[in-house]
Amino acid sequence: MDTTLHTPSEALADSVAKLAAARPVVIDVVPAREISAHHAAGGVSHAGPPIVPSKMCPPMRAALGAALTLEGAAGTAEEAIALVESGDIPLQPNHNVGGVGPMSGIVTGSMPVWVAKDEATGKTAWCPLNEGSGRVLRYGADGPDVLERLAWMRDVLAPALRVALEKTGPLDLYDLHIKALTDGDEAHHRTESGTAMSLVKLAPGLEDADPAVPRFIATNGQWFLNLAMVFSKLALDCARDVPGSPLLTAIARNGVEVGIQVSGTGDQWFVGPAAMPGPARLFAGYTEADMNPDLGDSAIVETYGLGALAVAASAEAAYNCGLDPEDRFAITTELRKIAAGESPDILLPNGKGAILGVDALAVAETRMSPPVHTGIAHKQPGVGQIGAGITHPPLQAFDEYAALVPTSAA
Amino acid sequence: MDTTLHTPSEALADSVAKLAAARPVVIDVVPAREISAHHAAGGVSHAGPPIVPSKMCPPMRAALGAALTLEGAAGTAEEAIALVESGDIPLQPNHNVGGVGPMSGIVTGSMPVWVAKDEATGKTAWCPLNEGSGRVLRYGADGPDVLERLAWMRDVLAPALRVALEKTGPLDLYDLHIKALTDGDEAHHRTESGTAMSLVKLAPGLEDADPAVPRFIATNGQWFLNLAMVFSKLALDCARDVPGSPLLTAIARNGVEVGIQVSGTGDQWFVGPAAMPGPARLFAGYTEADMNPDLGDSAIVETYGLGALAVAASAEAAYNCGLDPEDRFAITTELRKIAAGESPDILLPNGKGAILGVDALAVAETRMSPPVHTGIAHKQPGVGQIGAGITHPPLQAFDEYAALVPTSAA
Repeated sequence: MDTTLHTPSEALADSVAKLAAARPVVIDVVPAREISAHHAAGGVSHAGPPIVPSKMCPPMRAALGAALTLEGAAGTAEEAIALVESGDIPLQPNHNVGGVGPMSGIVTGSMPVWVAKDEATGKTAWCPLNEGSGRVLRYGADGPDVLERLAWMRDVLAPALRVALEKTGPLDLYDLHIKALTDGDEAHHRTESGTAMSLVKLAPGLEDADPAVPRFIATNGQWFLNLAMVFSKLALDCARDVPGSPLLTAIARNGVEVGIQVSGTGDQWFVGPAAMPGPARLFAGYTEADMNPDLGDSAIVETYGLGALAVAASAEAAYNCGLDPEDRFAITTELRKIAAGESPDILLPNGKGAILGVDALAVAETRMSPPVHTGIAHKQPGVGQIGAGITHPPLQAFDEYAALVPTSAA
Repeated sequence: MDTTLHTPSEALADSVAKLAAARPVVIDVVPAREISAHHAAGGVSHAGPPIVPSKMCPPMRAALGAALTLEGAAGTAEEAIALVESGDIPLQPNHNVGGVGPMSGIVTGSMPVWVAKDEATGKTAWCPLNEGSGRVLRYGADGPDVLERLAWMRDVLAPALRVALEKTGPLDLYDLHIKALTDGDEAHHRTESGTAMSLVKLAPGLEDADPAVPRFIATNGQWFLNLAMVFSKLALDCARDVPGSPLLTAIARNGVEVGIQVSGTGDQWFVGPAAMPGPARLFAGYTEADMNPDLGDSAIVETYGLGALAVAASAEAAYNCGLDPEDRFAITTELRKIAAGESPDILLPNGKGAILGVDALAVAETRMSPPVHTGIAHKQPGVGQIGAGITHPPLQAFDEYAALVPTSAA
């Protein structure tokens, strides 16, 4: 432990420097059990702070049952969930076992995950592959089409990506973010530029792959989201555990509660109730009554300073999340009040550096909770995505953290 | 001229052999004036058989005026069209000057085109680059957004593609079609697999390109259509001018008339009235009263034997063109009655070779006009695409050709 730190501002600066220095590169695609001891031991993991199956929102519970059935853990979803309830199948939040997953974020041992590494620190993190849009597991869809796609991803897509990475070498996620933020991505809702550029980088290794592999990537504009997530997760892990630092290191939603983690307090979760997204832009045929509360680990992107905190970069994301695109520069400017730092390399269209990290104490003081660009799941299982919008983690969680900080810090 | 041919069936077999032997590869992207003498002389070209501006359908006329304004030919669209009317700007059908263009198919001298070459014969053909969907020139949209995109394609996209082709070498279109037809493309309405695979092939040459370049390709599922068109055009040009052969070498629509060309009769057009598409699947908010009649050179894909003639390959294309996807194998089987041959390499999902070319005499005899999967333009200028559907070239055109064939051939 670094004992030279004396003030929160020094500690914050130290953790922001570590965040700025992180250079995550994708080194492999492996079954989760090969990178995570929890999954190697037969465990399963979920998005957000800890939650037991009986308390899960219906989309997460449906995803849990479906994923474990595909894993062969039991004959039916209900039997599989019972094994989790009894503790026979260990359950952990993704963040507690080194990774992140979008929306329900259910990850089982055979599920392929991106593995990112930061060479300077030797740290790694993981995130599953993006399934595409519509009826997909992470949004709580659990039909045979969903399981068939997951099996194809495991048996065809993941091995092809592994071969591609072997041929092309590591994928530089820092460089891809610098470029994507200049071309209309904010790296959460809008990830089309990152998707195209990551495909370009992997392409020389995909020439002999099943033609369905590059098509699956090219036709899925959200493909890069999971790479933005593993990038943000690993970079923030590099900035963890700086004594006294109020740098936010995670925002994670399980559909019932939202948890945050802070650098100076390590793996401790501070939680509050999950809000309903708003503003929101729902697909035709759905109403606000269909929405599930805030869900998924993808808010790790905002924790880094991208997504809703970099909305200035993407008129398209602003529109699709229910904002007036003309407001986007003013929003990012206002959010600098809770910024921990500014990126020297990832620039917004106005030439300013993107926000780099969030100061959890500033959030508590300004009462300005960081916005998150989120997908919105139907509250019933089996449906899938019904729109996108903006959510905020509960100030209660930030207050709980702030209460631990000696008042002399103020 | 090959004087060893004695019967239509021998002549047909000879032309089909030439069609089967064609191996178009993309060798460059250049301004049209660098590959076409007509465009080098200040000319402009359009889809379909010959037509004068005063007879053009509104979408084509709007595209003509907008393209010439961008070219700097005149200050306004009306002034530019007047220069065409007066003959000061020469006008030709694309097919008459070595190329093809989708929908309105307007091509000016500075507009970038794919250049394909068949190494064995030394023949070349060209087709402009795909603009994407929505409000685009080829569907008759002519606003500032349309011109801005075209300028970007000319100034950024085309040079990047040229650099990419220099780095990666020629793009093998025959090989891409073999793969795309196994992965859900029929190569006219559904071209997502070809799009992804062509991006994969070009990607090693795009690593230093503006990030907007790979994104433009990856987010445009119709990108490959123009490559399928230049492939089909060049392959069919390789099978032209075989004395006595009834092999169809072009189906082309100008929105008022549809023209066909046949191998044995060279560049002669046989024309009839352009039909309304039907069945059709229109975007929400449009009705059949909004449809423009049959438009574009893209029917060259069906002339080769793909698109609607290979509908068995694509449930998605069948659905989006207004068919019941379950009928798709029966449709392709029935269409073998007008097939000139069968591809030895491009296979349908049932393992049979795709139709290779159309026998124009068989069309006249069976009264079965080849279907075409077509995009549908709004009949008014400035709108763009309103749906997709199926059209048929007029039997009158085939009858006009058949009337020239000595009755002893029957």
